Amino acid sequence: MVNRIYSSQELKDLQQHLNKMNPVDLAEHFSNLTPYEVAIRIKLLNKDLLADTFAELTKDKKLEIIQILSQDRIQELMQELDEDELVDTLQEMPANMVKQIMTRYIDEDRRPIINQLLGYPEDSVGSIMSVRFISCKMNDPIDEVKQAVLNSDLDADKLEQIWVTDPYLKLIGFVFLADLFRAKEDNLMPLMQSVNRTVSAHDDQEVVAKLALRYDLSQVPVVDRENRLIGTVPVEWAIDVVREEYDEDLSNIHGITDEPDEGYLESSNFAIAKSRTTWLVICLVTATITGFIIHRYESMLAGSVALAAYIPMLMDSGGNAGSQASTTVIRSLFTGDITLSNFFQVMFKEMSIGIYVGVILAVVNFLRILIMDNVPISINLTVSFTLIITVIISKIMGGILPLIAEKLKIDPTVMAGPIITTIVDTVSLLIYFEVASLMLGL
Amino acid sequence: MVNRIYSSQELKDLQQHLNKMNPVDLAEHFSNLTPYEVAIRIKLLNKDLLADTFAELTKDKKLEIIQILSQDRIQELMQELDEDELVDTLQEMPANMVKQIMTRYIDEDRRPIINQLLGYPEDSVGSIMSVRFISCKMNDPIDEVKQAVLNSDLDADKLEQIWVTDPYLKLIGFVFLADLFRAKEDNLMPLMQSVNRTVSAHDDQEVVAKLALRYDLSQVPVVDRENRLIGTVPVEWAIDVVREEYDEDLSNIHGITDEPDEGYLESSNFAIAKSRTTWLVICLVTATITGFIIHRYESMLAGSVALAAYIPMLMDSGGNAGSQASTTVIRSLFTGDITLSNFFQVMFKEMSIGIYVGVILAVVNFLRILIMDNVPISINLTVSFTLIITVIISKIMGGILPLIAEKLKIDPTVMAGPIITTIVDTVSLLIYFEVASLMLGL
Repeated sequence: MVNRIYSSQELKDLQQHLNKMNPVDLAEHFSNLTPYEVAIRIKLLNKDLLADTFAELTKDKKLEIIQILSQDRIQELMQELDEDELVDTLQEMPANMVKQIMTRYIDEDRRPIINQLLGYPEDSVGSIMSVRFISCKMNDPIDEVKQAVLNSDLDADKLEQIWVTDPYLKLIGFVFLADLFRAKEDNLMPLMQSVNRTVSAHDDQEVVAKLALRYDLSQVPVVDRENRLIGTVPVEWAIDVVREEYDEDLSNIHGITDEPDEGYLESSNFAIAKSRTTWLVICLVTATITGFIIHRYESMLAGSVALAAYIPMLMDSGGNAGSQASTTVIRSLFTGDITLSNFFQVMFKEMSIGIYVGVILAVVNFLRILIMDNVPISINLTVSFTLIITVIISKIMGGILPLIAEKLKIDPTVMAGPIITTIVDTVSLLIYFEVASLMLGL
Repeated sequence: MVNRIYSSQELKDLQQHLNKMNPVDLAEHFSNLTPYEVAIRIKLLNKDLLADTFAELTKDKKLEIIQILSQDRIQELMQELDEDELVDTLQEMPANMVKQIMTRYIDEDRRPIINQLLGYPEDSVGSIMSVRFISCKMNDPIDEVKQAVLNSDLDADKLEQIWVTDPYLKLIGFVFLADLFRAKEDNLMPLMQSVNRTVSAHDDQEVVAKLALRYDLSQVPVVDRENRLIGTVPVEWAIDVVREEYDEDLSNIHGITDEPDEGYLESSNFAIAKSRTTWLVICLVTATITGFIIHRYESMLAGSVALAAYIPMLMDSGGNAGSQASTTVIRSLFTGDITLSNFFQVMFKEMSIGIYVGVILAVVNFLRILIMDNVPISINLTVSFTLIITVIISKIMGGILPLIAEKLKIDPTVMAGPIITTIVDTVSLLIYFEVASLMLGL
């Protein structure tokens, strides 16, 4: 492919066009261009937009762009990036490059905070928080606080709330900027909104999402052990966490592991296949158990082949009943509606729900077999009775397994899929054949 | 139960304690109290907190509280509630009560906007947007805009951004409050952030969530057909939408319909059972198909009972493989990564993924049967070959069914669960028996 040569008029038009674009759209646009075309465009972007766009790019594109830029522009870029964006970028770079960027391009006074942020674990609050905020003491004169805002060089979106501390720098609340400027008397306290929930930088980022959801916060404050403010997480980022957790949960429930980072269409088929295979292989191997059970009762099946016709229905019903229960419990765990202490409550609740559901299904099933299938009533009764027991046990298992996972500090969604299926399949088959041998005298 | 009598000192302490609480916590606290205890506490709350708490309550508690309050306090409460909160409340009330509240307690000048908001469909942007914002024209002198903010009686969290329109009132951007007050020259334009994405009040609320997610917006502007600003949705609310969609998706995928509004532990077992039964009954009835297929091949099964042992494994593998594909496609549909136009691309991609996954599973399965089960190699080959075909078909079905649902304007997640299971079960059984009759000559 021959690289296109742009005339100076074309470059001018392109520059105008690009500098009007949104960084998110621009990052997406870059991801579809050749390195040459990206290089052309990078040179045309003004520094703010370059930094905002850079922060949105994938790891590979970031590396590509760092190769292209002159030393001066790298320095400029690093200056424009906020601490959290820098940390995001550095975390994706190879170690030698991190060292090079830190020593060459990052101002000395920013290095300590960057190093500190780099130390927080992945997915922790510390790894996503912003360290750009203004705080004042509760007794500061209002004019002084206003002046601090007017003199601040922070981006305006970091100045929507001014944080308020007690004389010992402990966080006690915040004042909205509008309230500060509308204040009639020289006293911060009546304007202050108190802060009753904070998070630690070591907390999982999910904690921020939960708080933002529950209390409709626009900024979640992050404090150290002495309750001093060290950062904030804007809800604009918390919403990404909610979405990420959602994706993760769905993947876990359906046994998708280590998904490729790129989009679906961009990922290689092999990479996607790989992310889906592990769990399927595990399920396949655990299916040995169900196979083994059926083998054991082979002579019974041979004596009454009609029994086989209902195995898929029993297993599907059990599996579905169980995953309904686990879905509800996983969700209630997330919202805090239930905790580990509700273990027995959940167990009995699901048992009782299982009785309702099981009996209804069994009645429907009995009638269906009676009308449509030409089988002895004893087989019909066997199937219907097994269905009740299977549904009850599946509901109980679906209800308590996520709680057991939580107790063992495993993500409950990981447990939800394969383990419930295996247990429910095994149990329902065993019940089926045992009931059959009793009822049919086989 | 005898109602407790509070001493005046106790009431004073209680008042102090309650008025320090967060409205969200207070609403939760009220939900666990008797009507008498709620009545005591309601009287102690100051009007701001009462309104904020009221907005967080469930429908039943809201009705309960309206019964308790004096006419004056109802009027006060309605005045304190923002338009969106009022609309939320009115939507939950019986029709005669809505009429009474509108005519008696809502100021005449607010009625038109309330009526308009009430007209937007449930789950639309209009039903959740705030109509409290300040806008100015692009040529307005900065001092005038500042003065408008200082004189405004809007809550400070509604004043973080001042919206900017052209002379014809068309929305073109916004200015952050901090930038407004830090401005050095008398010109809004250099401070303005341009708006390149807006939503309509008739859009589904999911559209807001997607925009907020993609562009990290703190406020999503809602405009009419002439592109004039009519409302805004703060990201604090968009995050709730993301969460709701998540809950809805999970419920749909696992066939939970019309879930009770209360929390899990608070809902009656019967109500939960009801919400889970419909889908299970549908699955049960569609299982007639699989039962029918097995019946049809009964003589074959009688001739080789060992075949029955692999039915559960084949069906589970197919079901799981299909739901993995549908999960990925549903998610990519949400993010806009794929659209209906990618139909054939998805189909071929899933086919290719299915070949990888199917072959790996078949090899593992072949070895497993060879080592552990004492069955003829012809049965082993039948099972393994069926497994490949089943996985490929499941992947294709799982991939294209959500797209078909999208095309038919059905929520793809509704289609994901029962329909995929039924199709995959049916197809895998048919293949199994047909392959068996060929390979085993039965």
